[in-house]
This record gives sequence, C-alpha cells and structure tokens, in this order.
Amino acid sequence: MTIFPQPSGGRIAGTRHFFAVRAYYEDTDLSGVVYHANYLRWFERARSDLLRLLGIDQRAAVEAGEGAYAVADLAIRYLRPARLDDDVLIVTECTRMRAASCRMHQRALRLTRAGAEGEVLSEASLRIGFVAPGGQPRRQPSGWRAAFQTFLDPEPSVTASPESSA
Amino acid sequence: MTIFPQPSGGRIAGTRHFFAVRAYYEDTDLSGVVYHANYLRWFERARSDLLRLLGIDQRAAVEAGEGAYAVADLAIRYLRPARLDDDVLIVTECTRMRAASCRMHQRALRLTRAGAEGEVLSEASLRIGFVAPGGQPRRQPSGWRAAFQTFLDPEPSVTASPESSA
Amino acid sequence: MTIFPQPSGGRIAGTRHFFAVRAYYEDTDLSGVVYHANYLRWFERARSDLLRLLGIDQRAAVEAGEGAYAVADLAIRYLRPARLDDDVLIVTECTRMRAASCRMHQRALRLTRAGAEGEVLSEASLRIGFVAPGGQPRRQPSGWRAAFQTFLDPEPSVTASPESSA
Amino acid sequence: MTIFPQPSGGRIAGTRHFFAVRAYYEDTDLSGVVYHANYLRWFERARSDLLRLLGIDQRAAVEAGEGAYAVADLAIRYLRPARLDDDVLIVTECTRMRAASCRMHQRALRLTRAGAEGEVLSEASLRIGFVAPGGQPRRQPSGWRAAFQTFLDPEPSVTASPESSA
Repeated sequence: MTIFPQPSGGRIAGTRHFFAVRAYYEDTDLSGVVYHANYLRWFERARSDLLRLLGIDQRAAVEAGEGAYAVADLAIRYLRPARLDDDVLIVTECTRMRAASCRMHQRALRLTRAGAEGEVLSEASLRIGFVAPGGQPRRQPSGWRAAFQTFLDPEPSVTASPESSA
Repeated sequence: MTIFPQPSGGRIAGTRHFFAVRAYYEDTDLSGVVYHANYLRWFERARSDLLRLLGIDQRAAVEAGEGAYAVADLAIRYLRPARLDDDVLIVTECTRMRAASCRMHQRALRLTRAGAEGEVLSEASLRIGFVAPGGQPRRQPSGWRAAFQTFLDPEPSVTASPESSA
Repeated sequence: MTIFPQPSGGRIAGTRHFFAVRAYYEDTDLSGVVYHANYLRWFERARSDLLRLLGIDQRAAVEAGEGAYAVADLAIRYLRPARLDDDVLIVTECTRMRAASCRMHQRALRLTRAGAEGEVLSEASLRIGFVAPGGQPRRQPSGWRAAFQTFLDPEPSVTASPESSA
Repeated sequence: MTIFPQPSGGRIAGTRHFFAVRAYYEDTDLSGVVYHANYLRWFERARSDLLRLLGIDQRAAVEAGEGAYAVADLAIRYLRPARLDDDVLIVTECTRMRAASCRMHQRALRLTRAGAEGEVLSEASLRIGFVAPGGQPRRQPSGWRAAFQTFLDPEPSVTASPESSA
C-alpha cells in the first residue's frame, strides 16, 4: 500500500460527471482572477477524466493514428470569477450523441469550504467531434459510442442523484 | 534608429482591426494542431492591441484600481485547425457599444505564404464587460468609450477598405 | 457528507511534500509529450499546495499588498518525457531557509499503475524569494518562516520515511 | 501587395538572433507580473523563429516521424519582472554544437519606448537535444547542423554588430 497522493479523479453519478480543480497562480492574471481561457482547460481536463472513467483510451487512439476528439463549437458564459486557491467543481453532462460528435454541457461551481456546491462560476455548451489525424470528421469508434451510451442511459441502480447517494 | 525587431503590431482599417500571430510549439497539443483554448489567448492579444492603438492603457487602469475588461460571454466555432508555423490573421470588429460592455466579433484566418487572407480557422462572438476590482460591472471610463466610438464610426478619411488602401 | 470529488491534495511526510498531477491535452505539444515549460506549472502547483498545508495564505498576502513569492532562479533537467494520461508525483524539499528566500528541490516522477514511485522525469533546484508588490526583495512574514521551519525540522513523530509510515 | 500585418519576425545579426514579444494578460498572474514559466514559452518562440530563419522545417520533421528538438536542461535567472504591455527583446546565441544537441544562451531584455535595449529581465542557458519520436537522442539531420553552422560562424560580411549596422 502506498502513501502517495493520487491525481484528482472524478466520478460519475447517474448522467453527470463530477471533477474538481483548484485555482493556482498559473490560472490567474493580473486582474486577480482566473483568466477566461483557462476555464476551457479545466473543462477539457474533466472531459478527459470522463473518457478515462468510461474506459476510452485517447492516447492509444492518437498513437495508433485513429483520431482524436476536437471541439467543434463552444459557448460559455462567465458569471462570477474564480480566485486563487478556490476549489472548483466541474459538472459534465452529455446531452446528445451522434455518429461523429456529441454535445456536452459543463458547469464550473465554487466548492464551499465544506466541500458542497456553491455559486456557479461559468457554464458552457459545446460540441465535440471525432476527427481523423488529417482533420476530417470521422465516426467515433463503436466501442467509444457504446461506452458513452452507458453514461447517457445509466442503469437504474446508479441513477440516484448525488445528493441521495451520499 | 534601432535595428531590433519590434513585437507584432496590429492596425486599424476602417471598422476592422487586423493582428497577426504565429502558431508555436506552446500552442499545439499532441493531436498535432493548435489547442482549442489557445484561440482565446490569440483573440485576447488582438483585443489588447486594439485597446493600445485606441490609446487605452489597461495596465494603468488595473494599477490605479479602476477596473479591467473581462469576458462576459463567448461563442466560438472551430472550422479548420491551425498547425505549427502557420501565420494567422485575427480580424476584430466591435458590433455594439453599451455603457458597461461592448460586443465584438473576431475571426482567425490562415495567412497565405503571400501574406493574403486564406481560410477561416475559427470565428467568435463575445461580450466584454468593464468590471471593478471587486468584480461588479462598472461603466467604462468615458475616455475609453470615446476612443471606441472612433473605431465604431471612423471618419470618412480612414473608412477605406483595407484592399483599397494598400 | 458530500459525494463530490475534491481537488488533488498533497501531503507532508517528514521533510518532503508529495503532490500528484495528471498530464492532460493542455500539457502536451505536437511532439506528443508534455511541453517543457509545463513542468514549471506543475512544480508551482506543488509549492502552492505545500504553502497551504503549512497554513500560509498567499492570496490574503497578495490582496493585502504584503507581497508574494517569486522564483529567483531555477535549474531543471529533463530526463524522460511525460505523456498524456500519465500520473506524475511531484516531490518537494526545502533545502535552505534565509530571511527573504528559500531554496527548494523538486522532482517529477511517473507514478506506476499501482501508485508507486516510478522513473524520474525531471528534477529542479530553485530559489524562491519573497517580494513586495513593487518587486523589491522583502523579508518573509515571520509567521511564514516559522511555518516553514516545521517543514525543515519536523518533530520526531512525523519524521518517519514515507515508506515506513505506510 | 498586402496591407495585413505579419507576425513578429526575428532577425539574425552575426552570431545573435533577435526576436520581440509583448506581454499580454495571458502572460501575467495575480502578482501583477509575467508568470515565471512564461519566459520559457517566449524563449521557445525565439528558438523556433531562429530555426525558421535558418531554413529548418520543424513541422515537416515531426510529421515525417524524423524527430524534434527537446530541452534537455535549462537554468534561468529572473532579474526583473516584465509587466503587462512591456515590449521584450529575446536575444539568442548558440554557444556549442554537438552531433545530437546544442547549447544556447538566451536573454530577455525590456525594450525601451524608443525600441532600444533596456534592462535585462531574465537570462537562461539551455541544452537542446534532437530526439526520435520514441524519445531516444538522435543525431541532428545533417542539413540542420550545416544550417546552424552558418549561425555559429557567420561570414564576415554579416558579422557586424547590430549597433554598427544600424
């Protein structure tokens, strides 16, 4: 048994994925708050963690020349700023699945000191497409679509809301 | 007279601002193309350059505790990927001015080897709000609004299209 | 009790601080491995976490105009590349404490699938100075130095090596 | 003839390469100055521009699976902070050439309003190795070494110092 800490790992509860990040110096700018583009980095970390939890190996797909997910479009609203040392919860949902893309909704919420959901900092809707190494849209690997399907339609036993499963 | 190169500087032609960036290693990710969040950094560089050309001193405003511009919302479409060593033109327009915010439209186009406009890589619509250091919306400094007004309604002598002014 | 994940938190064991990060798309470049400058971001996250564990509130110090830590010099060797999805352990030690600065040693190691120490990816020696908002060196707040002293000379009860304390 | 601005391009004068960057919001952190890791990004932009001026096509080499340059070690001293809107000159020299690597020296200087050399902000010494896609050291392509040789030993006609050639 090891005593080393492990990287922050997210979890899936029903049709939502939860992931946590902390705001560091690198994330802020001289206005004292998190730089707007860095929320996109946080959202991407959460999506990568979700893929990992679904058993999808992005790195193997890139290395094998199969392709990778790429953001096709994204709309984000910035509601409140995150500040240094804030703990932030990223909530991810998949709202529509197509052959070559899926639409996702992501929110960043401040975690309270007690580790509960606080104010919404930003929320985004985005479409992720699977693309071949040359950049052309490509159908998602069938195994990946099947994995995502379990996230879209979880079995009843795991659909309990996060509150009630605590 | 100096022989040192100067940082890339943009220019205003009529109601459009033109700025150029190049894609470096830092901008790319392992899929071989520019990481999606980095277009937001490029767009922000262009907006900062525009403010500078309009005579607006962002740093003085932050240091004096007056406030800073912050992105309120943003929608971006990714049409084609930028690759290492691509020269990219950022075109910025201001489409609406309010007391505390303005709406802008920005596009990234690949510059051809000849330095002309090439394919559109991405385009974004965003709203920028002026905020006090505490984060509350605040009216833009009147001098800044006046400066922006010259960009929205340039005098006839400078409204020539970039093509005809070459 | 909440079910939300929390951000990765480090821990102190004796005179060493352990922190874990994961390599995401944002960290890589088109050569397929983690971009060299991003190790500095990882090391900074670990130092910020160490300060937090020592009870040092960086954000309050910046907001109160007292000052902030800044890197004065840094030497880093890159031994092996980190790749997407790698879990990486950051080990931080403080090797010398002065009135206005401290010298630290940091290493990045790949975590094995079993969560144990793997190969060393990079190692760095750096000096961190405390600086006033204007940029001048300044003595570290006395409370901060006292906090660091507990890290440099932990009490016998916590000096057990991480291996034996598992 | 185009009227569009072009990205900042560096120039070689004798055994030195000059390149300019500007500090934007993305480069700063909440302490109000440029984040330490971002100097490494600036230095890398300058090295990439140098390679380009020497006729070396990094992207083609990566895409052909030949390899890429990677930083092997780096030591940097931070002397003075850069601030938002500062124009910064990056001066690069190659101090030693080996079969699989070269040692370089890079400095960041503030450009004065008149575009002349100002204070030194940071300076770095680093070794760049050529590595195969799998990560193993590899001899630099012979054409690349020849190109670098022209930078190490420029012909007399171009060895004039930048001052005297102004």
